[in-house]
Amino acid sequence: MEILQKVSDSLLGLKNKKPLVHHITNYVTVNDCANITLAIGASPVMADDIGEVEEMVSFASSLVLNIGTLNSRSIESMVAVGKKAKARGIPIVFDPVGVGATSLRTATAKRIIEEVGPSVIRGNMSEMKILAGLNADIKGVDSIADEVDGEKVARQLSKKLGCVIAITGKQDVIAQGDRVCLIDNGHPILSQVTGTGCMATSLIACFCGASEDWFLGAVSGVMTMGLAGELAQQSLQAGEGIGTFRARLFDAVWAMTPEIMRKGGSITNE
Amino acid sequence: MEILQKVSDSLLGLKNKKPLVHHITNYVTVNDCANITLAIGASPVMADDIGEVEEMVSFASSLVLNIGTLNSRSIESMVAVGKKAKARGIPIVFDPVGVGATSLRTATAKRIIEEVGPSVIRGNMSEMKILAGLNADIKGVDSIADEVDGEKVARQLSKKLGCVIAITGKQDVIAQGDRVCLIDNGHPILSQVTGTGCMATSLIACFCGASEDWFLGAVSGVMTMGLAGELAQQSLQAGEGIGTFRARLFDAVWAMTPEIMRKGGSITNE
Amino acid sequence: MEILQKVSDSLLGLKNKKPLVHHITNYVTVNDCANITLAIGASPVMADDIGEVEEMVSFASSLVLNIGTLNSRSIESMVAVGKKAKARGIPIVFDPVGVGATSLRTATAKRIIEEVGPSVIRGNMSEMKILAGLNADIKGVDSIADEVDGEKVARQLSKKLGCVIAITGKQDVIAQGDRVCLIDNGHPILSQVTGTGCMATSLIACFCGASEDWFLGAVSGVMTMGLAGELAQQSLQAGEGIGTFRARLFDAVWAMTPEIMRKGGSITNE
Repeated sequence: MEILQKVSDSLLGLKNKKPLVHHITNYVTVNDCANITLAIGASPVMADDIGEVEEMVSFASSLVLNIGTLNSRSIESMVAVGKKAKARGIPIVFDPVGVGATSLRTATAKRIIEEVGPSVIRGNMSEMKILAGLNADIKGVDSIADEVDGEKVARQLSKKLGCVIAITGKQDVIAQGDRVCLIDNGHPILSQVTGTGCMATSLIACFCGASEDWFLGAVSGVMTMGLAGELAQQSLQAGEGIGTFRARLFDAVWAMTPEIMRKGGSITNE
Repeated sequence: MEILQKVSDSLLGLKNKKPLVHHITNYVTVNDCANITLAIGASPVMADDIGEVEEMVSFASSLVLNIGTLNSRSIESMVAVGKKAKARGIPIVFDPVGVGATSLRTATAKRIIEEVGPSVIRGNMSEMKILAGLNADIKGVDSIADEVDGEKVARQLSKKLGCVIAITGKQDVIAQGDRVCLIDNGHPILSQVTGTGCMATSLIACFCGASEDWFLGAVSGVMTMGLAGELAQQSLQAGEGIGTFRARLFDAVWAMTPEIMRKGGSITNE
Repeated sequence: MEILQKVSDSLLGLKNKKPLVHHITNYVTVNDCANITLAIGASPVMADDIGEVEEMVSFASSLVLNIGTLNSRSIESMVAVGKKAKARGIPIVFDPVGVGATSLRTATAKRIIEEVGPSVIRGNMSEMKILAGLNADIKGVDSIADEVDGEKVARQLSKKLGCVIAITGKQDVIAQGDRVCLIDNGHPILSQVTGTGCMATSLIACFCGASEDWFLGAVSGVMTMGLAGELAQQSLQAGEGIGTFRARLFDAVWAMTPEIMRKGGSITNE
């Protein structure tokens, strides 16, 4: 079956199951993550206290771990809830925000990879190069790495870590071993809004929470974000800018259908 | 006096007094709670450190306690600030988000009820059934309980806890002992945006902070949210969805007038 | 060179350098601060754990310290990161939210001023009067002080603390010793949205991160916020209100150009 058909079917599966997605994420974009989860048809829960995370994740269909504003308290909760999710066999989507920028972030990412074992890792090229042990220029949490060799980095990292790798950027690359998809949806304006990376991670968790094929879940989540970005940008009238774009981005995810996916999706399935 | 007349008068009282509403709430929807408080004409303050909450609440006209992202630090602050508010005699509006989902939430809700004694509790039917000691299916923080017997649950819980009970759902039920109102405003789209429950709680605190009748404050806050949701939904044009709806929801609360309330309000006063 | 020309040139400098602005700020408006930073053309990073803040700020071009939801953990991080920023010589923009409302806030502001030494302090008139040791009525975090003598307060406080003082209100006053600017941009609707003060602080840090003249940076940041507020308000159609205004505010900052600044700016350079 063609990849776009599979992706559009996965949207139906998501809307049918309405998976509960447990997040431990940053306080900058947490509201956006909750709203994008609702917009696509899943249900968000945000809980981060060590005294309840293992119990809360026992209801969930998938888990997001995002280290955007990590702290000593949330790191322990992430590891504990990640282990519980792993024991339950639900997908764990890890967003290593700013890995490489500080040693705390690098050590935490390493710890989550080793002690938890994420199912999917989504990040930008700078972050992924750091995880792959390659040199990368880092400045804060935004990527400044060039994007050549994305496919090679994704493939190698996927084999090394035994999980799905999703590198988002001008062209997105999703890899699971030698299974690779390139996605050409998206628009540069997405990088001018905070949280579009975090929201892509949440969308991946929404799709993975309703599918057994986590590679497909990652492709579906990333493509949904890119396509919604394109549609939101195209809707802008004269005088409208980034604030209006942000509202329309949620409109577009909320209105996403299998037909829109099949018509607008741009995936190269290698 | 007819209930809709009282509700619309309470809006004038709120705008005249501009009450300061102290919140300890979750980091997912805290920005929405601050903005809805401003939109209706009150003034929000968010402070949660144990070192200042009792001093901060001494200026406030009402207090919101919301356990959406509770943690060991904020729980102690909630109890301390709640006791101080109680001693001052100002209304305390409690939102037991996700009670029943984890034992930490259930124990915290019980502790706030016993040690603080809220003036108003607002929640969905699942949460309220848990508080009432009834069986309820819980999955995360969204309600999946059916809504029959809402009136009975509200009335019993109000008598048991000695406070106003506001159960929001398809039909909202507000009870204070045998005083009961049913509200038929609202629209299903409200459940597709995060924070509409939290914002209803904030609105209740805004109205209660300007009135001595906390039952009326609860009715006014819940009706305002429902009616604003209807008006925002009706304003949507082709192609507009949940992101635009969210902006319009704030527009509608901001534009609320006694006239709009009397014309659009749908309250059955039993 | 005329002040409006300098201000509009500073926007070009900002867009050219794209400074990284490290924030430790409150969880109420942090998303707005990140988005306004992106909208003007800078890059935000929010990190507050004591284990990484000094390392993170070593990449940054400027630092924001905002005590809106201070806590015992974040206060220590603010002092540590502030000292590091000071040692690096990058500008530190301090927003003493609610100083005077609680002794914790007053003590923390005093500590940041003494131990860190901010480059710019932005606040409302109540907050600035407290810092200046004058009597001021405080109720929560919004200003209720009258605004006469703003110029005198700003000038004295600037000399006392050896930094740039930006007092925002109906008329904004920026002072660095005897160098004073009065800004008449802005609109009352800005006070009906949470975070417009915090965002003005972030914009100051964006401009200061790309300029060696921090007085000019403060003037540019405050004027940008006020002018964007005017333009956003003017764009409102019938039936649109505060929610739509908020989206347009980001549109207006994103669309800001040197020409718009020179045409719409209203600065008295004393």
